[in-house]
Amino acid sequence: MTIVFDPRQLAHAPVRELHNGDWIAYNECPARAESIVAALGATTCARDLGMTPLAAVHDPDYLAFLRVAHSDWIAAGRQGDAIGYTWPVVGRRALDLTRIDARLGRYSYDAGTPIAAGTWEAAYWSAQTALTALDEVAAGATRRAFALCRPPGHHAGRDYLGGYCYLNNAAIVAAEARRRGLGPVAILDVDYHHGNGTQDIFYADGEMLFVSIHADPVTDYPFYWGHADEIGAGAGRGATLNLPLPRGTGWTSYEPALDRALEAIARYGTRLLVLSLGADLYAGDPISYFTFARDDFTALAARLAASGLAIVTVMEGGYATAALGDNVAAFVAGLHGGE
Amino acid sequence: MTIVFDPRQLAHAPVRELHNGDWIAYNECPARAESIVAALGATTCARDLGMTPLAAVHDPDYLAFLRVAHSDWIAAGRQGDAIGYTWPVVGRRALDLTRIDARLGRYSYDAGTPIAAGTWEAAYWSAQTALTALDEVAAGATRRAFALCRPPGHHAGRDYLGGYCYLNNAAIVAAEARRRGLGPVAILDVDYHHGNGTQDIFYADGEMLFVSIHADPVTDYPFYWGHADEIGAGAGRGATLNLPLPRGTGWTSYEPALDRALEAIARYGTRLLVLSLGADLYAGDPISYFTFARDDFTALAARLAASGLAIVTVMEGGYATAALGDNVAAFVAGLHGGE
Repeated sequence: MTIVFDPRQLAHAPVRELHNGDWIAYNECPARAESIVAALGATTCARDLGMTPLAAVHDPDYLAFLRVAHSDWIAAGRQGDAIGYTWPVVGRRALDLTRIDARLGRYSYDAGTPIAAGTWEAAYWSAQTALTALDEVAAGATRRAFALCRPPGHHAGRDYLGGYCYLNNAAIVAAEARRRGLGPVAILDVDYHHGNGTQDIFYADGEMLFVSIHADPVTDYPFYWGHADEIGAGAGRGATLNLPLPRGTGWTSYEPALDRALEAIARYGTRLLVLSLGADLYAGDPISYFTFARDDFTALAARLAASGLAIVTVMEGGYATAALGDNVAAFVAGLHGGE
Repeated sequence: MTIVFDPRQLAHAPVRELHNGDWIAYNECPARAESIVAALGATTCARDLGMTPLAAVHDPDYLAFLRVAHSDWIAAGRQGDAIGYTWPVVGRRALDLTRIDARLGRYSYDAGTPIAAGTWEAAYWSAQTALTALDEVAAGATRRAFALCRPPGHHAGRDYLGGYCYLNNAAIVAAEARRRGLGPVAILDVDYHHGNGTQDIFYADGEMLFVSIHADPVTDYPFYWGHADEIGAGAGRGATLNLPLPRGTGWTSYEPALDRALEAIARYGTRLLVLSLGADLYAGDPISYFTFARDDFTALAARLAASGLAIVTVMEGGYATAALGDNVAAFVAGLHGGE
């Protein structure tokens, strides 16, 4: 099993986020990655595969913004992490907005995803970690590679950040895999929270299947996406499958949704699966409400392994930091068992 | 000169707002209204003209949300003022969102406009204050009525709050004036900040002229609206006129923009003018960057008075609280001189 990691991802360390009306300590902390590295080890360091695969998914103006946002924030006389306070509610259009606050609102959708001094560096190497995992599979070195990505990516859209995410690692890998002729490519997102960014990026794309199992957005973040009637648009109609589940879901009631997901993935003729893995399915997760035990991660992975597909797993959420490494190790053991 | 006020507007008292990455004391404080009352006196108490004029401008689901948002926030186990942390970035659609946080994002566009326990009461009476001022003009009691509204309204859209605003007093008055056959009605917004909510409400409406003179949104809130190329849409094309001015503008360079505004208002055949007055044109305003002296408010009002139009003035922003009353009194003196 190939485990890819790059320590430059630890450079991203925002202090706090706005939640429930006040600041709380930032949940998506460097210790998350450290917990996973401690439990898994890492076999492969990320290679620099450059900006081209990132630019295949994200708009150039968004990438340019991400690179300079924190230095522009400091140049504006501010301290600490850059965070927006206002967001457009009407159709966005190309505007030459000079003020950092205007651009923060233009390119984000929440006040919980600050841009810190090390954010670009970490997000860049998080994407390279994911691409390196793909590279290993593409080279035939392994059928199952695990990308220990941090910050996560699945809430980031083509031109927006949010939900602790800046660059959409899963989308970047999936688009690059398709470009390399490894398709049909499908993305399965099993994070507790709906992968709205990934969905948006491929929503009108008929050549990328996106399937997500997640907490019902009526009760859970990101609220405005992930409802069952979102099935894609235009050429992508039917290539998005949302399977929302109620709070309190455990493995027994999760598995039928997984059956439906795997059926759709098989029916699509998938050759390569990109898996957005959230360990926030865990019963002890502080901001999520499914009830997975540790062994359930092994069961989930075993079902995926039994598909026989090549799988690039990209790490997304999971905030029970002390248990995180062991939960991810349980998942990786299940994947490996099927290799 | 008729000065309308209702003390129930003081019930709205949020503690803080998110700005430049941290909490600051709420700028739009009850002392603002107290400063104006102290300088002007109030001749008329607001009458209750009911919900119908409010519902003519705002969506019913938005009004329902505003009434219950704070109690839902408390019911969700939260303390203090209700404030969002996530906002949709894609086209909004009717979703049955139960969680208060989801609804706060759905119906707002910034993290600087909390809903406090007294917000609905105050916003309701702010709108009634504006309607009462119209009522006085409609009854022939005066040609020039001043509505001491608080909270302000011009940033609130048909279904969203933001920028310290909840109900769009100017839009409510303008729509009601038209309904009563007092048109053609025009709205002139001279607040330092663009009146995005008013613009949005009438953007496709060919029977309401909206003219705004304001700080260039490239540098100033609300950023995403108020650019010179926004001229209305559909039947409303040509019925929106935006005149952005650079920071540092004083009366001398403001007056030519006012000339253009008054020409457009005259050309429209306006009979009743609704004026959104911001006293944040003042050089001493803590969050604005025009350089009006106190006498310039008198000069501005005298130009408006010289138009001979019936004018309902609705109070919007102005945050130099100690000077606010005297600045507004200077404006009212200029209006009165032309009565």
